[in-house]
Amino acid sequence: MIPHLVIEATSPDGLARAGLLVTPHGSVRTPAFLPVGTLASVKSVTPEQLEEVGVEMLLCNAYHLSLRPGSALVRELGGLHAFMGWKGPILTDSGGFQVFSLAAIRRVTDEGVEFRSHIDGSRHFLGPREAIAIQQDLGADVIMVLDECPPHGAPKEDLRSAVNRSVHWARRCREAHRDGEQALFGIVQGGSDLALREECATELSGMGFDGYAIGGVSVGEEKKLIREVVSHTAPRLPFDRPRYLMGVGSPGEMVAAIAAGIDFFDCVLPTRNGRNGLAFTSEGPVRIRGAAHVRDDRPLDVSCACPVCRKYSRAYLRHLAHSGELLAGTLLSMHNIRFFQDLVGRARGAVSEGGLGELLKWCDERYPLEKPDRSRSAP
Amino acid sequence: MIPHLVIEATSPDGLARAGLLVTPHGSVRTPAFLPVGTLASVKSVTPEQLEEVGVEMLLCNAYHLSLRPGSALVRELGGLHAFMGWKGPILTDSGGFQVFSLAAIRRVTDEGVEFRSHIDGSRHFLGPREAIAIQQDLGADVIMVLDECPPHGAPKEDLRSAVNRSVHWARRCREAHRDGEQALFGIVQGGSDLALREECATELSGMGFDGYAIGGVSVGEEKKLIREVVSHTAPRLPFDRPRYLMGVGSPGEMVAAIAAGIDFFDCVLPTRNGRNGLAFTSEGPVRIRGAAHVRDDRPLDVSCACPVCRKYSRAYLRHLAHSGELLAGTLLSMHNIRFFQDLVGRARGAVSEGGLGELLKWCDERYPLEKPDRSRSAP
Repeated sequence: MIPHLVIEATSPDGLARAGLLVTPHGSVRTPAFLPVGTLASVKSVTPEQLEEVGVEMLLCNAYHLSLRPGSALVRELGGLHAFMGWKGPILTDSGGFQVFSLAAIRRVTDEGVEFRSHIDGSRHFLGPREAIAIQQDLGADVIMVLDECPPHGAPKEDLRSAVNRSVHWARRCREAHRDGEQALFGIVQGGSDLALREECATELSGMGFDGYAIGGVSVGEEKKLIREVVSHTAPRLPFDRPRYLMGVGSPGEMVAAIAAGIDFFDCVLPTRNGRNGLAFTSEGPVRIRGAAHVRDDRPLDVSCACPVCRKYSRAYLRHLAHSGELLAGTLLSMHNIRFFQDLVGRARGAVSEGGLGELLKWCDERYPLEKPDRSRSAP
Repeated sequence: MIPHLVIEATSPDGLARAGLLVTPHGSVRTPAFLPVGTLASVKSVTPEQLEEVGVEMLLCNAYHLSLRPGSALVRELGGLHAFMGWKGPILTDSGGFQVFSLAAIRRVTDEGVEFRSHIDGSRHFLGPREAIAIQQDLGADVIMVLDECPPHGAPKEDLRSAVNRSVHWARRCREAHRDGEQALFGIVQGGSDLALREECATELSGMGFDGYAIGGVSVGEEKKLIREVVSHTAPRLPFDRPRYLMGVGSPGEMVAAIAAGIDFFDCVLPTRNGRNGLAFTSEGPVRIRGAAHVRDDRPLDVSCACPVCRKYSRAYLRHLAHSGELLAGTLLSMHNIRFFQDLVGRARGAVSEGGLGELLKWCDERYPLEKPDRSRSAP
């Protein structure tokens, strides 16, 4: 069975939807947020703890895993699910983004990318066929085509050539993919150029992917621009297929994207910020290391029912973070992931009632737009 | 109710015992191993995970907690149990060992120690009265007298003066302690000098403590010397009171000490080694980062029933440790703690059957004596 979306409710304007992604590893309620487990581990959080905070699906990274421990080894050990002990669905990113942002690139051609590993400088080649082979070895439920992801601020001709190449690679990936249990998603590129985005979306839609992603956002641009790109692009993707906004994001960006018809998100924010002592709460961000929390016996968020808020005071969490105790990262990551799960859960409920506008306002009041994020994926 | 020991079984030679420490926070089966939660957190392991691997009682450190976040603050927040979310019994070390090993000491007199914090250089004074006041604020079930802990290899006159001072401070602590819910343990010093150990044990026994500890071992001396000191000292302490060997230790040292009549242990080995990629197994130590484990799909220890061994392969743990993933520290710490719990559990069962000699042989074959440990407490 190929993972597919069952739409259960739509918003009054017909754009947003709520439903289920049905996969061989169980169903995921959508809209859904996927925590990032780059190297087959969500940093400092066990699979059991992920379940406790409501996670249904994870993202892992094909680029990172292909370098360490190697995708053939993961296959030999039974695939990603068995390897990392996660029973639910998994999505793997193809590695395009990481090759273009982390590796030392030697040459990009229509065949693929020659690059040197960011770990040990060893030489590798990643083309559409390799991207599919690696992801088939890993065995995630949803895999992604290889794409070229230009940096924010790239000139128009670079955006154009990245779109051309991404479309070409997408077609090659589609041809190379032979697996009745894995969904393959195409990735729309085009930067902040709406015409290019539209063209790319149309091209990919014609290839009949199992789902579609919007890539190349949240790479340093203004948040307003993310919303513009997403609201322009999402409705141009096939309505009956799952839609995934890669590397997003912050609360407002997620809700705005849900309103535009996005179903899936992944982002390192809850875990990276958690390890850095920043908590997402219903009253806005809380920097737990601050002296204000020294004797504060309230939970991180009074309106949160996560295991961390049910048990620990801000004073204790502040003490842990202040003292450099590793448990701080675990507990704040757990709380933050739950915050993201609760948020997409609220959005899910708001879809059919037309309540997404109000939820977006709630987010924007607490998590203002001012600062651009560079939140996509892990370094 | 003052925490007290109920002896349920003794070994054929009458030296070793198995029983229960009964405390206001529940009972602990003895012999017992206490993981170290220096700063009110067992590094990288949650209280729920500690329960999962069979922990019944923890150690926290009064010196560290008095500097960060401060004992008055912990009291204000309901005491250590509430603060850190651990429902079972807790023991706090007085801070003597840490003051003598970590702080910059300005002056030691019979009144106490003037020292500078190892964190920020701030000035502090710790005397018997302060040690008791701090530990009453923290509110552990078992607290320790202030002792002077001379370094390994200290000359005889230093050992002598440390014993004199420790006895003097112990008496002051006994007088200062007013709490019907906390047990106060005396600490025997004397280095490797058996006559001094004996003298100190006799002096302290006369003061009627709720329990007795052997301190100043596992500070860099040969393991054989630890066994000699413990087997000489333990039987000279009141039989009906709990006995605690501080900062020990490795598997053989624990079992040898149990055979000599020790009931309690604490040690950083399972957690510190876990974070460093070393696992304790029934076949001896396993360095998980080693290339031998790259494709090893067996658990860390086939004969272990801990949540880590039930779920993860050596290959996965090796991948995590090799990639610097924090989860490696969590999972290896959990497994190692369970190994220590299982070991004291086996010792408990072996007491009445006279099986400790065989268990000691089992340990010494797997964890040879050659290397001295410096395992006591956290830095």
